[in-house]
Amino acid sequence: MDWAEIFASRTKRMAASEIRELLKLLDQPDIISFAGGIPDPALFPTKAFQDAFSDALSGDTQDAALQYSVSEGYGPLRDWIVGEMAKLGIPCSRDNILITSGSQQGLDYLGKMMLSPGDTALIGWPTYLGALGAFNAYEPRYDRLNSGSNRSAKDYADAARETGGRVKFAYMSVDFANPTGETLDAAARDHVLDLAEELDIAVIEDAAYQSLRYDGEAIAPVLAREIVRKGDIEACRTIYCGSFSKTLAPGLRVGWVCAAQPVIAQLVLLKQAADLHSATINQMAIATVATTIFDSHVAKIRAAYSARRDCMLEALAAHMPEGVEWTRPEGGMFVWVTLPEHLNSSDLLEQSLKTERVAFVPGHAFFADGSGTNTLRLSFSRADETTIREGVRRLAALISAAV
Amino acid sequence: MDWAEIFASRTKRMAASEIRELLKLLDQPDIISFAGGIPDPALFPTKAFQDAFSDALSGDTQDAALQYSVSEGYGPLRDWIVGEMAKLGIPCSRDNILITSGSQQGLDYLGKMMLSPGDTALIGWPTYLGALGAFNAYEPRYDRLNSGSNRSAKDYADAARETGGRVKFAYMSVDFANPTGETLDAAARDHVLDLAEELDIAVIEDAAYQSLRYDGEAIAPVLAREIVRKGDIEACRTIYCGSFSKTLAPGLRVGWVCAAQPVIAQLVLLKQAADLHSATINQMAIATVATTIFDSHVAKIRAAYSARRDCMLEALAAHMPEGVEWTRPEGGMFVWVTLPEHLNSSDLLEQSLKTERVAFVPGHAFFADGSGTNTLRLSFSRADETTIREGVRRLAALISAAV
Repeated sequence: MDWAEIFASRTKRMAASEIRELLKLLDQPDIISFAGGIPDPALFPTKAFQDAFSDALSGDTQDAALQYSVSEGYGPLRDWIVGEMAKLGIPCSRDNILITSGSQQGLDYLGKMMLSPGDTALIGWPTYLGALGAFNAYEPRYDRLNSGSNRSAKDYADAARETGGRVKFAYMSVDFANPTGETLDAAARDHVLDLAEELDIAVIEDAAYQSLRYDGEAIAPVLAREIVRKGDIEACRTIYCGSFSKTLAPGLRVGWVCAAQPVIAQLVLLKQAADLHSATINQMAIATVATTIFDSHVAKIRAAYSARRDCMLEALAAHMPEGVEWTRPEGGMFVWVTLPEHLNSSDLLEQSLKTERVAFVPGHAFFADGSGTNTLRLSFSRADETTIREGVRRLAALISAAV
Repeated sequence: MDWAEIFASRTKRMAASEIRELLKLLDQPDIISFAGGIPDPALFPTKAFQDAFSDALSGDTQDAALQYSVSEGYGPLRDWIVGEMAKLGIPCSRDNILITSGSQQGLDYLGKMMLSPGDTALIGWPTYLGALGAFNAYEPRYDRLNSGSNRSAKDYADAARETGGRVKFAYMSVDFANPTGETLDAAARDHVLDLAEELDIAVIEDAAYQSLRYDGEAIAPVLAREIVRKGDIEACRTIYCGSFSKTLAPGLRVGWVCAAQPVIAQLVLLKQAADLHSATINQMAIATVATTIFDSHVAKIRAAYSARRDCMLEALAAHMPEGVEWTRPEGGMFVWVTLPEHLNSSDLLEQSLKTERVAFVPGHAFFADGSGTNTLRLSFSRADETTIREGVRRLAALISAAV
């Protein structure tokens, strides 16, 4: 059986994620991993989840917890999210919220909803690897957002027509972005909105790390800024993707999309057809835990990750040789390292796994065009401070020898 | 914002599932529902799940239960499924199993993996509504499998070329199919395999109801029959989709795909990009419950549903007027009713909800071409026997008045 004859053309653009493959390495106990954007399980609110699952499976909810439920998502969880969105300057109603199986599924569904083959998605260079993976299945062309080259809306639109489609959306992670750790300032957010208005396209705002700010002033989300302009979420083109993976627990696969009702209504149809609904009991458990301890729990993990970020930045400053640069994130889980141009971070990883037993993600995976071969991503979320210092020291020694 | 300008062409074929919309009616307590293929929550193994979730969240597994996990699925669950597949005559290994978020997701991923716009999917007339919904997103042409018209492989292939694609797969639910309740006999299974060989296409075997046989002899799955022919699952074109939704609980969203490794490897890439993995804790809980009580639990629900099926068949025989026909399923959850041709089951439903307060699914939703307007699907899974008798009596009275 020649399966290549049977597979659809879209499969040609699906490749194994380097991060997911790296995750398999984490089972080896002597590896120091700065790879995957993985929360530290020591910080999971396990007791709260024990109680929440136990509650869901008893009393009034015990039948519903195990039963089919509506594609839109569990009402009380959507209501809790409505309250959180309001705090961010995004007044909306339950009908503006769809529960997804992680924000990754939100990205997949948004690609599926908007991209026909040959359409253009505007993305950062670099950008979140999982967004590229999700969108690739719908065979878009990518164009570079915020290239600093001052291209006009017309330039983007003309280039998009060459592959037979049009620009459909701009995608960006605005706070402590994966992979760079950088935050888009207010002016840059407004600039993207201006461009989106001119092109008449959607904006996908990936807010997976938004709650994890350690210092600096919070900047209003793109959707909040657009609501200020337009007066109402129903008039907005921005689609906000949220996640509980970085705040409560990733293994439950619960995230959400917040957008104008025509978008949510279309996504509901899409979800009905694709997996009916996200697991009912998990939505109930997340709703309970979020309602009872969200703020105090997030304060706790912010304190822990913030200390690890400080530790990593200090270790980088102490050990990295001249010619190596890195970002100073105000939150999130990542520091982005740029090596001298002649160094290749994939080769470095191979060497590092062999001799230093330190894992990270080579940066080129985050570039739609495979450039960025001299960059790498370090995550500080999962290792304790002693381990971070030791891992950075070893990595810096390897880089110093290679420079 | 004109979202229709932004949405991809595939969204034009996405419509709300009538069943999912009907589900919302079930909240009204005076409705007798023969709609959705919904398990009776009174039969859920709730105590076993309470223990299983509690176990997953304590001891050795408590961190892993809440953490990211591999896209392939939880190893011990895949191993348990390998054992079950062996009992069905399908020897395979862990690498032949992917865990999906319900078998619905398996169907979505298989459509995504194989269908380019204009490709042909061979399906039954009628067929499972959710399969149509999942496949529609990939813009196929449908052709009718087992039409009884003796069309040759060449006829199918020639017709497929007219829309610029080729036949990619035949899809069928073989045991107590949704919606008809009918079972494909051994000769018909072999005939589909022969046709698939000639066309060089895949076969998707939807086995969602397979464990729910109440009487008659079990017939080996299509995949088992192909393994007898070929000697090894790796040489097989049949892709088997299983589910825990009808046996243990649908709300956890756990199902699986069993197929040759090139298929599983491609589906793993697709799942990585689409939702990373199915919820870790749910896979653990299903593994525990399946390992400890699967056989005894399934025996219990078989006994309950079997009695309800008998009750519905007796009530239909007692009350339905001449000219109404129905199937006698050997398992599953559905009886398929064919009314005299001049009756329209959508009109009947509207009337029934108003005056009789009895819900069912109009049959045309299960036909790719919208035919079957004089058919309807009754589910006997969720009502007790007194309710079944009363519901059928009311429905029969309405039909008698309309005939």
